[in-house]
Amino acid sequence: MRAVVRRNKQLVCDEIEELAPAEGQVLVRTLACGICGSDLHALHHMEHMIELGRRGGGGDNGFDPTADTVFGHEFCAEVLDFGPGCGRALKAGARVVSIPVTLTPGGVEMLGFSNRLPGGFAERMLLSEALLLEVPNGLPTDQAALTEPFAVGAHAVAKAKLDRDSVSLVVGCGPVGLAVIAGLKAAGHGPVIAADFSPRRRAAAERLGADVVVDPAAESPHDRWEAFGVPKARAAQSMMRMMGGRFGQPVIFECVGAPGVLQGLIEAAPAGAQIVVAGVCMETDRIEPSIAITKEIELTFVFGYTPEEFAATLRHLADGVIDVAGLVTAKVGLDGVAQAFRDLGDPEAHVKILVQPGH
Amino acid sequence: MRAVVRRNKQLVCDEIEELAPAEGQVLVRTLACGICGSDLHALHHMEHMIELGRRGGGGDNGFDPTADTVFGHEFCAEVLDFGPGCGRALKAGARVVSIPVTLTPGGVEMLGFSNRLPGGFAERMLLSEALLLEVPNGLPTDQAALTEPFAVGAHAVAKAKLDRDSVSLVVGCGPVGLAVIAGLKAAGHGPVIAADFSPRRRAAAERLGADVVVDPAAESPHDRWEAFGVPKARAAQSMMRMMGGRFGQPVIFECVGAPGVLQGLIEAAPAGAQIVVAGVCMETDRIEPSIAITKEIELTFVFGYTPEEFAATLRHLADGVIDVAGLVTAKVGLDGVAQAFRDLGDPEAHVKILVQPGH
Repeated sequence: MRAVVRRNKQLVCDEIEELAPAEGQVLVRTLACGICGSDLHALHHMEHMIELGRRGGGGDNGFDPTADTVFGHEFCAEVLDFGPGCGRALKAGARVVSIPVTLTPGGVEMLGFSNRLPGGFAERMLLSEALLLEVPNGLPTDQAALTEPFAVGAHAVAKAKLDRDSVSLVVGCGPVGLAVIAGLKAAGHGPVIAADFSPRRRAAAERLGADVVVDPAAESPHDRWEAFGVPKARAAQSMMRMMGGRFGQPVIFECVGAPGVLQGLIEAAPAGAQIVVAGVCMETDRIEPSIAITKEIELTFVFGYTPEEFAATLRHLADGVIDVAGLVTAKVGLDGVAQAFRDLGDPEAHVKILVQPGH
Repeated sequence: MRAVVRRNKQLVCDEIEELAPAEGQVLVRTLACGICGSDLHALHHMEHMIELGRRGGGGDNGFDPTADTVFGHEFCAEVLDFGPGCGRALKAGARVVSIPVTLTPGGVEMLGFSNRLPGGFAERMLLSEALLLEVPNGLPTDQAALTEPFAVGAHAVAKAKLDRDSVSLVVGCGPVGLAVIAGLKAAGHGPVIAADFSPRRRAAAERLGADVVVDPAAESPHDRWEAFGVPKARAAQSMMRMMGGRFGQPVIFECVGAPGVLQGLIEAAPAGAQIVVAGVCMETDRIEPSIAITKEIELTFVFGYTPEEFAATLRHLADGVIDVAGLVTAKVGLDGVAQAFRDLGDPEAHVKILVQPGH
């Protein structure tokens, strides 16, 4: 079958071996699979990613960055065939999504970052039957493929300490920031300020429910806190507390993931702010701990999602609680993937590009 | 009256102006005042501290680092005289402690970091009557003077997310780390691992109740997590959760405050660890955000204490819940302060040095 293979730090269309489902596995046809920022990074910097994982004490599961890899972990697929021992509750033809993990006799494979199993930039994949979620009727395939990136937002929101007085600022409205905005609104949390330099991304933030969108080139989003009742200085906060006044816990979602952004937020944030770090900065970053200390900043680094958050996100998409219409700005076949990776370097050009391996 | 004055980045004994209590103020005789690590830093790097405060959006309250300053914010004092409008619930001769803040008609002065009012390295001070706490009979003056640094530990513990399964690691057993150990034990929290290179500090940690003390030169304190039921890897934690098993939230207290310590902890900590940053690193620090992300680390920067935490700490000292006997390793008069600052550079030489301005 055909797939886009990462080989020598390049993406090439090639024929790869056909798949046969093992015990508990399901063979699926990939209908659509999004390109993630982590794919863009991994194309060139996989060795560095693995080195960082190793330093953090994580295992690499035998992953070899010099061997062929088929990316793609944001997919919607169609059931084709079942391996031995499957319950077959779903029928062939059913559309499914899954967390990008496949259980194999040898261990757990992370789809999209495995040498042993292909991810969604291949015509077919092997998924674990136990992890499949059927796409509800009526939810278009393109939108179902967004379950994975939007689950990332739901998880970041679940990790934030939000209450009824909280005010949120989402910094960066790429796919991660948009997912956070959607997650905040889906959970019923109050005012959301969103900031991005790109008009296209600001428009998307507004469609997903951001109450205020700010162009940081024109004004600091931090100038908006006070209008939402969040005093910036510790002294003013103490005074309000002494007077028995309530004020919102400021929560900032860092969804950029570039060096320097974190320190800029530590300096500009209201005292006592929680900064939920959802943007993945793969480079060494510098901070001034003493500023974070005197302001009592909390940095909450978040990653991934739980299976429950993934399932809830699919329901929110199907029920229209999260409306992702318009976020897919291009679709490409396998032979368009390499160019799509290049196109995604321009934040104004696209929000999300889907790969359709069958086209 | 006599005081130790910071002038041209040096400490000199000099005569300074006599004090007269304004409305609501009390004139006190300084009985004892501890030397804090922040004093050591401020002697040479006050300008940098103020610049960092300004970058964080904090006001400097008109503080001029080139003008004379009398340090000292960890004090026990004796009431001498009252300004107008005082309730005089305490009598002259009463021993008192206070958070190091004095309310003046012109605003709030931070004692020890003010050009307008002297801190505790002076024979006398002006305190606010409303903030005074009488030292309970039987608590020696030297121990009452430790209320302030031990309140810092109580606050760090209050900011930690501790439950009955939590396991704590205190990294660095200088005055901040010792205060954290005491705060953990006073609040009834369970196992405390403490790490410091200095045998003297490890012995002090043990006296304050640390369950395990580790010399990091001989072994990594992170090798102890598993013995206390804290799995280090995310995968093992997920497995335990799936099996319905409980395990302790690992909480690490960073009480060193030097560049590189934070990143070392991010790499070595169990996944999901909360790192409470109580050590004040005044230099730019480097971190690898991507490692913190994949491990879902939480960095909680903490500072100071509330008046309630300060009062509770005084009670704990008086009731023997926290036993600080032996922590004061030297006492000096005003003319010994400059040398004491130099002596504190050697972690093996001292734990806490008290200044006794009347001697």
